[in-house]
Amino acid sequence: MSNTWGETASLTIFGESHGPCIGAVLDGIPAGVSLDWQAVSQEMRRRAPGRNELSTQRREHDVFSVESGFFNGFTTGTPLCVRIANEDQRAEDYARLQHIMRPGHADYSGSVRYGGYNDYRGGGHFSGRLTAPLVFAGAVAKQILALDGIAIGAHILQLGNICDRRFCSLGKDKALFGRLSQNALAVLDPTKEEAMEKAILQAKRDGDSVGGIVECMITGLPAGMGDPFFDSVESKLSHMIFAIPAVKGVSFGDGFALAAMTGLEGNDSFYYDDGGRVRTRTNHNGGINGGITNGMPVLFQAVIKGTPSIAKEQDTIDRSSGTNCKLSVPGRHDPAIVQRALPAVEAAAAWTVLDIMLTAKSGRPYDGK
Amino acid sequence: MSNTWGETASLTIFGESHGPCIGAVLDGIPAGVSLDWQAVSQEMRRRAPGRNELSTQRREHDVFSVESGFFNGFTTGTPLCVRIANEDQRAEDYARLQHIMRPGHADYSGSVRYGGYNDYRGGGHFSGRLTAPLVFAGAVAKQILALDGIAIGAHILQLGNICDRRFCSLGKDKALFGRLSQNALAVLDPTKEEAMEKAILQAKRDGDSVGGIVECMITGLPAGMGDPFFDSVESKLSHMIFAIPAVKGVSFGDGFALAAMTGLEGNDSFYYDDGGRVRTRTNHNGGINGGITNGMPVLFQAVIKGTPSIAKEQDTIDRSSGTNCKLSVPGRHDPAIVQRALPAVEAAAAWTVLDIMLTAKSGRPYDGK
Amino acid sequence: MSNTWGETASLTIFGESHGPCIGAVLDGIPAGVSLDWQAVSQEMRRRAPGRNELSTQRREHDVFSVESGFFNGFTTGTPLCVRIANEDQRAEDYARLQHIMRPGHADYSGSVRYGGYNDYRGGGHFSGRLTAPLVFAGAVAKQILALDGIAIGAHILQLGNICDRRFCSLGKDKALFGRLSQNALAVLDPTKEEAMEKAILQAKRDGDSVGGIVECMITGLPAGMGDPFFDSVESKLSHMIFAIPAVKGVSFGDGFALAAMTGLEGNDSFYYDDGGRVRTRTNHNGGINGGITNGMPVLFQAVIKGTPSIAKEQDTIDRSSGTNCKLSVPGRHDPAIVQRALPAVEAAAAWTVLDIMLTAKSGRPYDGK
Amino acid sequence: MSNTWGETASLTIFGESHGPCIGAVLDGIPAGVSLDWQAVSQEMRRRAPGRNELSTQRREHDVFSVESGFFNGFTTGTPLCVRIANEDQRAEDYARLQHIMRPGHADYSGSVRYGGYNDYRGGGHFSGRLTAPLVFAGAVAKQILALDGIAIGAHILQLGNICDRRFCSLGKDKALFGRLSQNALAVLDPTKEEAMEKAILQAKRDGDSVGGIVECMITGLPAGMGDPFFDSVESKLSHMIFAIPAVKGVSFGDGFALAAMTGLEGNDSFYYDDGGRVRTRTNHNGGINGGITNGMPVLFQAVIKGTPSIAKEQDTIDRSSGTNCKLSVPGRHDPAIVQRALPAVEAAAAWTVLDIMLTAKSGRPYDGK
Repeated sequence: MSNTWGETASLTIFGESHGPCIGAVLDGIPAGVSLDWQAVSQEMRRRAPGRNELSTQRREHDVFSVESGFFNGFTTGTPLCVRIANEDQRAEDYARLQHIMRPGHADYSGSVRYGGYNDYRGGGHFSGRLTAPLVFAGAVAKQILALDGIAIGAHILQLGNICDRRFCSLGKDKALFGRLSQNALAVLDPTKEEAMEKAILQAKRDGDSVGGIVECMITGLPAGMGDPFFDSVESKLSHMIFAIPAVKGVSFGDGFALAAMTGLEGNDSFYYDDGGRVRTRTNHNGGINGGITNGMPVLFQAVIKGTPSIAKEQDTIDRSSGTNCKLSVPGRHDPAIVQRALPAVEAAAAWTVLDIMLTAKSGRPYDGK
Repeated sequence: MSNTWGETASLTIFGESHGPCIGAVLDGIPAGVSLDWQAVSQEMRRRAPGRNELSTQRREHDVFSVESGFFNGFTTGTPLCVRIANEDQRAEDYARLQHIMRPGHADYSGSVRYGGYNDYRGGGHFSGRLTAPLVFAGAVAKQILALDGIAIGAHILQLGNICDRRFCSLGKDKALFGRLSQNALAVLDPTKEEAMEKAILQAKRDGDSVGGIVECMITGLPAGMGDPFFDSVESKLSHMIFAIPAVKGVSFGDGFALAAMTGLEGNDSFYYDDGGRVRTRTNHNGGINGGITNGMPVLFQAVIKGTPSIAKEQDTIDRSSGTNCKLSVPGRHDPAIVQRALPAVEAAAAWTVLDIMLTAKSGRPYDGK
Repeated sequence: MSNTWGETASLTIFGESHGPCIGAVLDGIPAGVSLDWQAVSQEMRRRAPGRNELSTQRREHDVFSVESGFFNGFTTGTPLCVRIANEDQRAEDYARLQHIMRPGHADYSGSVRYGGYNDYRGGGHFSGRLTAPLVFAGAVAKQILALDGIAIGAHILQLGNICDRRFCSLGKDKALFGRLSQNALAVLDPTKEEAMEKAILQAKRDGDSVGGIVECMITGLPAGMGDPFFDSVESKLSHMIFAIPAVKGVSFGDGFALAAMTGLEGNDSFYYDDGGRVRTRTNHNGGINGGITNGMPVLFQAVIKGTPSIAKEQDTIDRSSGTNCKLSVPGRHDPAIVQRALPAVEAAAAWTVLDIMLTAKSGRPYDGK
Repeated sequence: MSNTWGETASLTIFGESHGPCIGAVLDGIPAGVSLDWQAVSQEMRRRAPGRNELSTQRREHDVFSVESGFFNGFTTGTPLCVRIANEDQRAEDYARLQHIMRPGHADYSGSVRYGGYNDYRGGGHFSGRLTAPLVFAGAVAKQILALDGIAIGAHILQLGNICDRRFCSLGKDKALFGRLSQNALAVLDPTKEEAMEKAILQAKRDGDSVGGIVECMITGLPAGMGDPFFDSVESKLSHMIFAIPAVKGVSFGDGFALAAMTGLEGNDSFYYDDGGRVRTRTNHNGGINGGITNGMPVLFQAVIKGTPSIAKEQDTIDRSSGTNCKLSVPGRHDPAIVQRALPAVEAAAAWTVLDIMLTAKSGRPYDGK
């Protein structure tokens, strides 16, 4: 079920970039939750294009209408459907792309997959625009998780060659995630912001784009969540994160750096803190051992490749004529999507964690009714 | 369903490191396939411990018995159950570990998860020994995929600080995967083998262990396999690869290096080759665009952390007394599991690809009966 | 996943009786199918209320808008979302029912399930109105199945005490299903129509309702479809049929009459017909042996209880005061829903059979690429 | 996934009638449950053949070995694998049946399904013998449910033409289910037992068999369990019950009799009892409204057709020669399986209810951690 995901909290997405609308159905969420729609809109705006010169000039307000599942100010527990109209479409930009395959896009693989019947305009169902319903779902999930003291935030760990410092625990800075979410370029080290902005604007002038790495942290997750093997927290989070277009790698804790570390260097020593709680002195494993949370912050990274839609001329094929050709992708491009990917990565994490929390009952010691 | 995975080809694993046996049920595999059990045994041996001084001295022959699903020399199409007896157990090694949590292991997170009822001996159900039924399933899947011209191989891309060169396409060297599978340390650049061996033996002397990166390539997959979003090839492969204990990162194509590349640098140009087939000149995207195969080799990397069981003394906690303590993990350790992880990674990929191939009908152009 | 169903062809429904709209997301359907929307509308009209004096006077035109998944005259293979606006709502009818539990309805069980947060107006998400998106999905599925020569029809086998004769095979009467679908009361024996109509009108005058049995036949299904045990054709069909509100029993072939038959009487003898095709002389097993189709028409029955919303006074409880009370359900009632259930039962069967056909690859003899 | 079932409590079965063994993997069951293996064995004996002259003379002791998931006297929460060896096989009985299709069996449909590669001996994977692991799983589930005060029992409502009286609530007779489980022919009205026994022995002399109806009751289920639509309690129970070979119909409450009842007659009036609990005065709906439990006993019926394996001569086909032929099924037959089906039906209900209880968290009002 390619467009539905989650065992208990189940998310279904639909729509195409240039159809009448995109949207989602959120099933299995708890009843009786009072949602702050302003906060949801704020999350939608973080992802929306056209806000500044760092993103595409396609302007989408991503105004959403809730079609079901919300009644008298609370979730009903039955499916919540959201509809987001498509506004600023310029299908003509894409008309000539029906047969010319944009490199790095799903044009060719998707066309083979669907026998050429897929909506090719703006990537159709493959468009990054489909992350809008994901961000909506994540914003809802975040509010439910907050009731349990679980918070999720992200920053740009790397943009092109510019690196931010790594996340460690929130510590006393409970407002960090809030501050990060309001930055055009969310970084922990503010001295890196200007360089990143320059790199994006340079790529824009070059008719090219830049990639980067998003780092995401989940705090407040109790120990013992998740399952061994096929439902490990890493398996479920990575499954969802890789659903975001342009993600090509996901790692946890120290990630690929663990290759050059010894077992000792990669182990996180346990200790009882003054309050008698179990903690680890380091967090090389990103809060997960054996697929199951250990009570430390869950920490992961996702690499986002540079937007493949670029003005620079590239080699490609024209399938109508069966010949090789040149292409400069027309339209309004994102010189970087890393900053817009932040809320999508957080949303994917939020929905997954919500699903893990709601599914958590299986195999637990029996607690009576 | 933590221990069952796959939509069409569905794999269920069971067992504990020190119980009577481990095993698996393979459901949904095609009927009428003649399996070469010798080849399956050969794959099992690649993973088995105790073969040489590079791995733990626990000796397990991993002899398997097929309990169902195979009749008159062919798969029946109904569930194939395999049983692998546990032989060389030394439960006494683990008796004192019931309350002392090994850093980097699932001892603590698993104990919280299961309320202390989990079998703690040798990691119980969390043991790396559970990769034996996975390797069995992968060996079966490989034989089925081979009927379609699909092959899967892997090498050690990195061990500690020593790097092998990257996979590119098989080209004319059809025997490469076969050769790699017979090496104690499978590398593309034979000059790196000795240094890797030395690193492992040094870690052994140090009472420590080394990590590394496995790179895996899948050739022969046609274009158009997989789905957008939640069933992307990346989502499904990473889900399964992260089920392997000790994997902390999965990346495709150029992976995390894409962060520092521009959109142009990360795009793979399409062209028609002399035979009129669609190819790309590079493979930065690892054979996948928009979650769907593009006909090029699928290429991914998985980082394996150093075995957390080490002789070196570490800080940890004793949950029986609720106090901090020291631990030097007793027993027979693997100074490196990267080389033993190769067949497990290949197996996880094989089973996933088999599932993708068998599930491939949904949303395809209608082809009548 | 309570509101999503199907392995390969996956249907998600949403909405409440008195919310802005109801709808569905159809995922996994083949690409490249040209759909006849007029035929879909015709199916929607068969189910719609307010057509004649035999059903409720709530008038819903059930005009639908396709929001995604259809492009240039063909299905795209990506999710097809349909939206059906609610029109003729009279929420005031239901205001006083928030705390008074209608017997035979989900008012009480649903309120406990959702902690009182569910939309209680007109049954909310439990409303029979949710069969509208089901009928839409079934109408789409029927058109796809027709490409394979599979047809689905139903008639009223029983209404109150009046019995129609049983379905046997279509034989040469290929137009039977079409004729049945156009009748206000679809029966095989036209002499029964008048008595049924009278029974419904009498129930209407009585402020009561009548139940009945729908019999459904699926022709053209090849032998060998379905699976043993948990994915038997009976398991999957019954799962879906019981999702239709008011269904309380599902049987196949001779159904409950098999209890009083001997093994010999219930067996269907095989024979080769003149064309060398395998047939059975009788069809006591409804075209299914061991959960798998045998090539004969699949035949099943579903009992539909009388609409629980009736004008007659009943005993019940008022949960606001915690006291017993009397209730005469206000609003516009269906004196019988059996005739309106026909397209819903056909639709449930159609979607299930589509899913079975599209999922059919697992465990089949290997057929190469 | 044809041989795996359940969302949270997931059951996987494997094996063939004449292979080395049959068995099951039980995943997702709670940790820390102390199981009474004697009680499990007792359930296995209820199903086992060869106990008396009312069933087949094939003698199977159905001794089971638990291979994993049970440690130090408690469930671990990880997969529990059970293995049941096949003992009294007479494969020679079936050798000539490879090409001659037994009417009423899966021989033909299964052979088409698996391209002739399925194990045909004794029905292979389609054998009723596969209900042994189901009964094992049900016996485990019953013990877990008993901790919550949930009990499950069944009786023979009909055998041939002889009818027992219907179940109503347990009332004060808490020992009823226990007594029923010890009877060779479990009936509520003891005067019917002799007639049933005679009918079975007559069928045996005739070389024929008799069918019947099992009625099952589940007590102690709280109100509010289950979900609307695709996960209705009726959908899930029927899905599982139809997985039992020979079941051709499933109904709830008054079942098919509801067709001839009016809405009023089929409604169950609510009232507050003296203790302030919500009850219904009747139970026509079998404890389920809108797919969700209402706190009354869940009541359902399953029709079991007469065993198709009979000594009487029948017409059928020989697929090796492609000709019509005669067949008298060799081997040791069950003149009735209704009495042996009782524990299988109870087991299917038990596992389904366990799954429903463990899955119950989705969409519930939020209860904090």
